[in-house]
Amino acid sequence: MASQERVIVLGGDGFCGWPTSLRLSHEGCDVTIVDNLSRRKIDVELGCQSLTPIQPIERRLQSWQQLTGRKIDYRNLNIAEDYQELAQLIQEVRPKAIVHFAEQRAAPYSMKSPRHKRYTVDNNTNGTHNVLCAIVESGLDIHLVHLGTMGVYGYGTAGLSIPEGYLTVKVDVNGAEHEIEIPYPPHPGSIYHMTKTLDALLFYYYNKNDDVRVTDLHQGVVWGTNTEETLLHPDLINRFDWEGDYGTVLNRFLVQAAVGHPLTVHGSGGQTRAFIHIRDTVRCISLAIQHPPAHKERVKIFNQATETHRVRNLADLVSRLTGAEVRYYVNPRNEAWENELVIHNEQFLELGLQPITLSDGLLQEVIEVAARYRDRVDVTKIIADSRWRADIPLDREGKAAQGEPVIA
Amino acid sequence: MASQERVIVLGGDGFCGWPTSLRLSHEGCDVTIVDNLSRRKIDVELGCQSLTPIQPIERRLQSWQQLTGRKIDYRNLNIAEDYQELAQLIQEVRPKAIVHFAEQRAAPYSMKSPRHKRYTVDNNTNGTHNVLCAIVESGLDIHLVHLGTMGVYGYGTAGLSIPEGYLTVKVDVNGAEHEIEIPYPPHPGSIYHMTKTLDALLFYYYNKNDDVRVTDLHQGVVWGTNTEETLLHPDLINRFDWEGDYGTVLNRFLVQAAVGHPLTVHGSGGQTRAFIHIRDTVRCISLAIQHPPAHKERVKIFNQATETHRVRNLADLVSRLTGAEVRYYVNPRNEAWENELVIHNEQFLELGLQPITLSDGLLQEVIEVAARYRDRVDVTKIIADSRWRADIPLDREGKAAQGEPVIA
Repeated sequence: MASQERVIVLGGDGFCGWPTSLRLSHEGCDVTIVDNLSRRKIDVELGCQSLTPIQPIERRLQSWQQLTGRKIDYRNLNIAEDYQELAQLIQEVRPKAIVHFAEQRAAPYSMKSPRHKRYTVDNNTNGTHNVLCAIVESGLDIHLVHLGTMGVYGYGTAGLSIPEGYLTVKVDVNGAEHEIEIPYPPHPGSIYHMTKTLDALLFYYYNKNDDVRVTDLHQGVVWGTNTEETLLHPDLINRFDWEGDYGTVLNRFLVQAAVGHPLTVHGSGGQTRAFIHIRDTVRCISLAIQHPPAHKERVKIFNQATETHRVRNLADLVSRLTGAEVRYYVNPRNEAWENELVIHNEQFLELGLQPITLSDGLLQEVIEVAARYRDRVDVTKIIADSRWRADIPLDREGKAAQGEPVIA
Repeated sequence: MASQERVIVLGGDGFCGWPTSLRLSHEGCDVTIVDNLSRRKIDVELGCQSLTPIQPIERRLQSWQQLTGRKIDYRNLNIAEDYQELAQLIQEVRPKAIVHFAEQRAAPYSMKSPRHKRYTVDNNTNGTHNVLCAIVESGLDIHLVHLGTMGVYGYGTAGLSIPEGYLTVKVDVNGAEHEIEIPYPPHPGSIYHMTKTLDALLFYYYNKNDDVRVTDLHQGVVWGTNTEETLLHPDLINRFDWEGDYGTVLNRFLVQAAVGHPLTVHGSGGQTRAFIHIRDTVRCISLAIQHPPAHKERVKIFNQATETHRVRNLADLVSRLTGAEVRYYVNPRNEAWENELVIHNEQFLELGLQPITLSDGLLQEVIEVAARYRDRVDVTKIIADSRWRADIPLDREGKAAQGEPVIA
């Protein structure tokens, strides 16, 4: 990447934001991280901690500068609330691109209670809108790169291969058939996923009305924890979520195996999901920054995922590697028992992405991380206690009764 | 309507909310109005007042009770902020239906500044989400009736007749053509309209995940001011907006004629809009409450409009009736110079709606209201000063240069 390009990373202290910030700094960008540390505060709320012992943001940045000579700036502000500070920062930094990770990003957390639903909608919608509004107010030509999710498409869409954001359809207009391309009809499966479909409309509008250049990355489930940059020093270690709200499925299985907990498959495990390794995440974001859409071009959408797997097949894989038992639990989500998922992801491959896949040996690296830090896991927090519907059965403590398996 | 049915009207002090509340009370409902009086406060902000001398909400309600013996309850609370009070009210009232007008509803106001954009997104999105969240939390079976807008469809959609919310399209799946029905792709023309497209996704999600029954009324431009109920006594008079932000086109023309101001056509006047008289608005909402969707039925969408007209034809009509001059001004919006608009509205007709049209003599009633109260108009507030893009020319005061006509 061209040296001295200025980039603001919103949410740059988080699981994807932190390794992305290091990667962009390594590539020569002048990076400013904006983060209100909400993810660390949610750890406090949930009584959990990252599997990996992450350092405070200031120490992370000091170590990065000492190791590489590169400085990353940091501002603690809440983009959903502190609009004037955000607008002023954009005027000061005058970035070429803003990378936007600053959203509440766990579906189970978004479903815990009315308070969590309302926080997720308020935080994510106002945050994204404030960024767009501030970009327009700045009068600067800033490319917004947003981390979205494959979950906006919904799963099991009638055998259709999921395109990269836009769907070609035919409509009948006064007896004549017209072919048009429309934004893929959204079908969110949780409050969290819904906020990403709201984001898409914000992008659509600001792109059309104000010619804001936007790239929206529809990411799959991330696995792994380390990147080349976070491995440089223990102070740079990335976070690793394993508990019921923020842990993602494959990483969770590997930790469960490390602590001797059964692998928690919800429902039949026939759900097919798209996956990407964290190292590919940071590469994709770098590629997206380097290839902005043109002016007057519509929102550019990438499917940021490299392979698809059924959940039960992943459980079986981890079981084979580790000897862990697989158990089936009540599924707290409203979703199909089984689904197919075929995705298009040609755009990143055409830009040169060489995908890391499950077969590339990096599973072993995660297993080692999980084994090294397993004493930091509180096994009582492994089971998710969120539920999608009031009619999902509760256990004695008023939580979703997922502690007991329902099918052998 | 069956007597003693309880209905909450959110935004029940406003232009559509007030006559709807009276209508429902007249039909035998027990009505509770919720309103934070934000529309009256915006009048203060803008230095404007309703053309008609509206009374404080308390006096309105006292007069209604004295005249009819029917009591309407009133709570002053902000549904976008006061979630606990809203949730508690729903538990107390246990309404059959909630009618939701409680949104910032002027496109020009939503475009005035970053503050106005942010207020509109924050207020409308959190307000709608809080209502949905509180309905689910209540565990009650409550039908939500929402006032939406025809503007979510966008205008000039390639000659397509605008369906009532859902579009049938054909998609290619592995070489086989499948017919599917999708929510009509949204195409909002302002921040305000965008918030209504966000609402639609909130409805979609809560309907699908929690089986909340929702009716969304995609309303056209409202004209007129009085209904049978507001005419009962001067204390019950409805508000009438005429200035640049909240005034709607036909009512504005009639007031402009009354005060000797040229009729303000923006752009070519070739924009086609859908219209409805306020008396039909209240009838439609009553019909919608009486015909809720079934459980597990998708969001029910009506096009709540009775006829379409080009703006310049309306100006010519008002000019013929009143002798007023028609003038053409810079269009502050990003929109097509001319557009066609054909809409489907069969659902309300099938439920028995007998539309009031422009030819029914009610234009004369509006002309009389405009003439009676013309001294309350501040002619300096007639021209809108919002603009949709930074490149729309400004006059000396930093406002959009619409004070001078650009084509004869």
